[in-house]
This record gives sequence, structure tokens and C-alpha cells, in this order.
Amino acid sequence: MDSKLIHEEGGEKTFALVFDTGDEVVSEITNFAKETALDAATLTAIGAFSDVTLGYFDIERKVYEKIPVEEQAEVLSMIGDIALNEGEPELHAHVVLGRRDGTTRGGHLLEAHVRPTLEVVLTESPDHLKKRTDEETGLALIDIEDG
Amino acid sequence: MDSKLIHEEGGEKTFALVFDTGDEVVSEITNFAKETALDAATLTAIGAFSDVTLGYFDIERKVYEKIPVEEQAEVLSMIGDIALNEGEPELHAHVVLGRRDGTTRGGHLLEAHVRPTLEVVLTESPDHLKKRTDEETGLALIDIEDG
Amino acid sequence: MDSKLIHEEGGEKTFALVFDTGDEVVSEITNFAKETALDAATLTAIGAFSDVTLGYFDIERKVYEKIPVEEQAEVLSMIGDIALNEGEPELHAHVVLGRRDGTTRGGHLLEAHVRPTLEVVLTESPDHLKKRTDEETGLALIDIEDG
Repeated sequence: MDSKLIHEEGGEKTFALVFDTGDEVVSEITNFAKETALDAATLTAIGAFSDVTLGYFDIERKVYEKIPVEEQAEVLSMIGDIALNEGEPELHAHVVLGRRDGTTRGGHLLEAHVRPTLEVVLTESPDHLKKRTDEETGLALIDIEDG
Repeated sequence: MDSKLIHEEGGEKTFALVFDTGDEVVSEITNFAKETALDAATLTAIGAFSDVTLGYFDIERKVYEKIPVEEQAEVLSMIGDIALNEGEPELHAHVVLGRRDGTTRGGHLLEAHVRPTLEVVLTESPDHLKKRTDEETGLALIDIEDG
Repeated sequence: MDSKLIHEEGGEKTFALVFDTGDEVVSEITNFAKETALDAATLTAIGAFSDVTLGYFDIERKVYEKIPVEEQAEVLSMIGDIALNEGEPELHAHVVLGRRDGTTRGGHLLEAHVRPTLEVVLTESPDHLKKRTDEETGLALIDIEDG
């Protein structure tokens, strides 16, 4: 994955991130966020994956059910944000995938490998966003009042 | 719903809006837009809904057909804008939902209840956008020439 | 298609583009990019199409398979970027479409006609992004190291 700062103004930074075949998306974005000290970022992306593990959050059992998609698929949309969870930047991203016949699949992004490219535009704000564990679901949710 | 101004520069403002379980999205964003005097904003969001009413615009009959989705679903993407319709800010948003099996549903957002969170990033531009009723469809569409 | 510059700061420009019934999206955005000398832009859009040709990239045969969608459909999401390919701005966009029954289709955007509107927000960064032909796939991919 290569990154480039394409705009900076008033403390807001915009990066282009370009992934190559084989790159795992969640770990590489998380690493980039740690190295670059991102604490309140948003991103959109398009590209294609060779295989993905999606998640669906079971609100009763409070766990992500895994949905494997083991086929080459277009990344029709990837929208996400980065906020601090116990001091560490954490990616939260959802994706919609396009299959060979034009039908789609989608979910919470757990893991994905790029083929041949993923083009991400990421904007870091000068402020920060913090997460706090939600008692009802056990999920770490962005808590603005706490921020 | 809690809101936080996370960036402001040259008249452009970026807000994070975080919704809680039970919040209705269209009315809360519309209220926020009125209180904050938004007249040219764009937004993206991810999260999850407990129930949604989607719309599909029937171009012949000039009405939105309602598509109820009465199940817990991931909000894979929500993209929208806010413009002035007869002086009042109006939300126009489309969503893609992810179901338990990874299949998707989507449409124009008519009404939706959040569970457990919806994370919205909204950018207000210093300019304004106005809508004008389109004679052919009866829809209020953004009219840049009129703006 | 009408365009309006709604924000400019530190070399970054944000445009609203509003399309009318019958406009072809790929050619009009490409023309706008050439006229406005865009070389590193990102965009999101919602609206509706009367007919679309989607693409799915066959990674083995190295060609886009065409997926025609010949029905009125909501544009649930359109995410894209513009970068320079051999000196000329080139649009890369993916779309998710919503059908009358709420099911979806999606793919790489090859061609689409608007009905009745498409609302695009496009941000041009002061930097530039260049593409280079990828030997393995034959695709022109954004190459940050080359930029």
C-alpha cells in the first residue's frame, strides 16, 4: 500500500491510499492510522477484492456472524471512519461488493484482500473522536459526549 | 443524536453526527439542518437500522413506492445531500442495507430507526443549493442555475 | 449538466454537478474534468438512471464483461475518482443501483443515462494523481510512486 498526502489546510489532511494485489485492507489501514496518528478520519474507496470476510452483527447474541465471499468482486462502495478505542485508532468500514452477474453482497468489513487495486481517499480532521464500549451491545461505539 | 463540529475552515464546516438506538434518521437530520441553518451539505454514513422504509420513485406515476425492510440490517452506505426547498433545508439520501445472509436491499430513504448506532459525517459548504419543482416528475430537484 | 463551484480553499475546490434527464454520465464528467483541468478528484453521487451498462472485470481474460441494466433504477451510491491517464483526466466510478423491489445491482460504471436527476459532489485536490498501465491486468491504475 502506498500513501500520498494530497491536501492539507487548517489542520485537515487528505490522503490517497493505493493498495496492490494481495494487500489485506483492515490491517494495512489500521497500521497506517497508527503510524500517522489518525484519531478522527473518514474514508471512501472503490476497487476490487479477491476474497473478503464480511460481518453481520447479531444484535441478540452480540457477535459478528461471518459471511465469507470467496470470489473476485468489485468493491462498489467502501465507507468508513477511524476513531480512538482505548487510545488506539480503530477502523470501522462497511462494503458493498459487485459480483460477475451484477448482483451484490455486503456487510461490515472484517478482512479483505485486494486484487488488483483499491483506491482510498481518507480525510483526517484536526479534532478527535473517541469510542466507548456500549453496555447493551458490547460494541465500541463513537461517543461524542465523551470526546 | 449527538453532534460535534470537527473541522471549520474558510466557511466550510464538517460535523460528526452519532445516532443512538431508536433515533429516527430523516427527522433528526432535518431538525439538525434547520437548527444549524444548513443550506448546502453532503453526507456519508454507516451503522445499522432496526427497521427502514425505502422508496423507489415510479417515474410514470410520479410517486415513491414504499419498500419496508423490517429486520435488523447493516447500513452499508448512506449518501445524501441537503438543499433548500422553498427556504427550508431538505434531506435527500439513498441507502444500501446488508442483511444477515450478506444480500442487500436499497432505495431512497423515507424513514429509518437506528440500532445500535449510525455514524454520519456531514460537510456544509459556505455556498447554498436550492431546489425547484421539476414539472415533468413533480420532484423538487436541485437547480444550480436558480441558485 | 450544470456545475457550480461551492467551496474553494487552499487550492482545494468543491463542485456540485447536477445532471438532467438524458445526460450520459461518463462522457459528461470526463468532459467537465478536461475543461476544468481536474487531475486528482473524488466524487460521490445519488440520483436515478433510466438505463446503465455496468462492468465486471474478468481478472483472467483482462476485459470488462458488460452487464446491461435496462430499467429505471435509483442510484443508491456512486463513488469515484479522477486521475490522469497519459495526461488526460479519466473517471473511475462504481455504482450500486436500487430496483423497484428493493433488490440491487452494481458494478464498474461504463455508461449511464440520467432520469430525472443525478447530484454529484466532486472535490478536486491541489495535488495530482497519475495512472500507469499495470502489466499484470492491462488496467491503468493509480500509481502514487510515479505521481
